[in-house]
Amino acid sequence: MRGIAYGVGVGPGDPELMTLKAVRLIRENDVIAVPGKEAKEAVAYQIAAAAVPEIAKKQLVPIYMPMIRDREKIEEEHQKGARILEQYLEQGKNVVYLTLGDPTVYCTFSYLQHILERDGFQVELVSGISSFCAAAARLNLPLTEWDEPLHIIPAVHKLDAPFAEEGNYVLMKSASHMKDVKDLLRKTRLSVQAVENCSMETERVYRSLEEIPDDAGYFSLIIAKEQK
Amino acid sequence: MRGIAYGVGVGPGDPELMTLKAVRLIRENDVIAVPGKEAKEAVAYQIAAAAVPEIAKKQLVPIYMPMIRDREKIEEEHQKGARILEQYLEQGKNVVYLTLGDPTVYCTFSYLQHILERDGFQVELVSGISSFCAAAARLNLPLTEWDEPLHIIPAVHKLDAPFAEEGNYVLMKSASHMKDVKDLLRKTRLSVQAVENCSMETERVYRSLEEIPDDAGYFSLIIAKEQK
Repeated sequence: MRGIAYGVGVGPGDPELMTLKAVRLIRENDVIAVPGKEAKEAVAYQIAAAAVPEIAKKQLVPIYMPMIRDREKIEEEHQKGARILEQYLEQGKNVVYLTLGDPTVYCTFSYLQHILERDGFQVELVSGISSFCAAAARLNLPLTEWDEPLHIIPAVHKLDAPFAEEGNYVLMKSASHMKDVKDLLRKTRLSVQAVENCSMETERVYRSLEEIPDDAGYFSLIIAKEQK
Repeated sequence: MRGIAYGVGVGPGDPELMTLKAVRLIRENDVIAVPGKEAKEAVAYQIAAAAVPEIAKKQLVPIYMPMIRDREKIEEEHQKGARILEQYLEQGKNVVYLTLGDPTVYCTFSYLQHILERDGFQVELVSGISSFCAAAARLNLPLTEWDEPLHIIPAVHKLDAPFAEEGNYVLMKSASHMKDVKDLLRKTRLSVQAVENCSMETERVYRSLEEIPDDAGYFSLIIAKEQK
């Protein structure tokens, strides 16, 4: 019988934000895959290892996930990655693929998942704490109350009419365009806070738009709320 | 010294989706508050009790959170609820308030949090798995890939131009208007799936718009995605 591929979120960084299910699946299975060139250098691995030290003795499988824009080249690498997982699955072994945050929110595992499913393998996703929920908790800031909509926008600088909608905003993946994003936000009446590297050792909190540095890092997340 | 009020998410229903931190905070503290008239009947309590049975011996504090529309009456009840928590906090005891899902997403604790903070008490939020991440995982459905925005809409029937935005949608709190919401969705080209009572024993999965019953229950969550 073929194994199951588990896409398991380990949360944003704090090992204590892992779920009981993530911990159990790591303990019960022998093959642990992580995105990266070197398994033990992967952030997802390090989070899991802090909560489940015995992971170090497992069969660790690094899956290279390129951060490039060439879709053809990316697809090629995803195919290679999926093949590696499929070899274990065909041997009847489950594979636990660890991923930062949640496996349904801008997650590289989704690409592997599509290939595995097309190839007839069973995939199961296990939720993790998403970075935006963790950032909101860190800021003590409800994302939504009453009937407020919430818009999660990964590349706000590409929108024709940014911030036109009623509701609150989470801006992800803004780091490479932070200056432009700040300019856009300055034109709104939204109340802005941000967290960089939420729940990691290098975490920084910004309580206003102007505090956010133009060169904030990749894991910067902005929460922009309607002022009531 | 005053105690700390922890707003702790217990996730959507499956006790295994609780975080290690939620489990630790329940174990380490004596006063556990839950929304409801009877503590042991609260869904959040029952989820926690399945993972941490010793919770039954703690000081359980039910906080009545009315599901009504009269804002003045609601505010009055929230004030009463906050006073109850403040009595424990003033005795130097921490209070762990358990809440379904995540404490920043349409969470009744937010109302108490605002009062506690105004009254000068320390509040800390601990993320839980949100219902929409759990529903997406249950459906094996990525909520967002590449640069797709995600819109979380609690009352889509109230919007002037529903589904006008690029991106994917999560529709929450649609149950009382399910027929209208289905009519709205039928006019779009979105691909629709839904989960009722996700990760609870009464869970039901709907793989298309037409499968969703007009009388689906309160904990029904629709995911509507752009077709690629």
